[in-house]
Amino acid sequence: MSDVDAAVDLDFGDSGRIPAVAQDAESGEILMLAYVTPEAVERTRETGRAHYYSRSREELWEKGATSGHVQHVEEIRADCDGDALIYRVDQEGGACHTGYESCFYRTLDGETVGEQVFDPDAVYE
Amino acid sequence: MSDVDAAVDLDFGDSGRIPAVAQDAESGEILMLAYVTPEAVERTRETGRAHYYSRSREELWEKGATSGHVQHVEEIRADCDGDALIYRVDQEGGACHTGYESCFYRTLDGETVGEQVFDPDAVYE
Repeated sequence: MSDVDAAVDLDFGDSGRIPAVAQDAESGEILMLAYVTPEAVERTRETGRAHYYSRSREELWEKGATSGHVQHVEEIRADCDGDALIYRVDQEGGACHTGYESCFYRTLDGETVGEQVFDPDAVYE
Repeated sequence: MSDVDAAVDLDFGDSGRIPAVAQDAESGEILMLAYVTPEAVERTRETGRAHYYSRSREELWEKGATSGHVQHVEEIRADCDGDALIYRVDQEGGACHTGYESCFYRTLDGETVGEQVFDPDAVYE
């Protein structure tokens, strides 16, 4: 069922990937949601830094490899049916490429509820 | 781009659905992850109770319709590229069909980190 050697079986389904939610381990804030393959989970466990799979670029990526905004993963949790993960992280800088701490910085009605923690123009050239 | 009439454009992609993370509005705990269609989001906004789309049953469902463990949605947040949501909820009972408050009650290594809040045998007959 799972291609990850762990106590909890993961189910990557037909697509070969599942969503992983990055959550600030201290504040509980949800920082971002991205997708992971078995390889991304393995690399995350090996390095202690969050890795994901980019659906558009079709490649494994390490969060913060370009920006320096690395996520140190303190714990990985799996849900009851093994098809979603939480990365509980210590986030350097901000998670969002817009400069906000969290990618979920707006309500659906357009109200800004998040905090901008860096200037994206200074980070991404 | 979006089939939901909101200030923030949502991108449901080819599949027609995006993940929604239910988060306890008070504690910040992540309770579950499920998928939503435009219709599920609209029903959630209309009723104030969390609705999702079941990929296996291929139908809209209201969380708690069977168990009574309804999620009262206080706020919906969208991520930067509009392809993931957070439902910030007040959860009645527990979110997980196993009786745990959260579906993410285990680490990937199999350690139980969540709290069981109801007896599933007494709720689901």
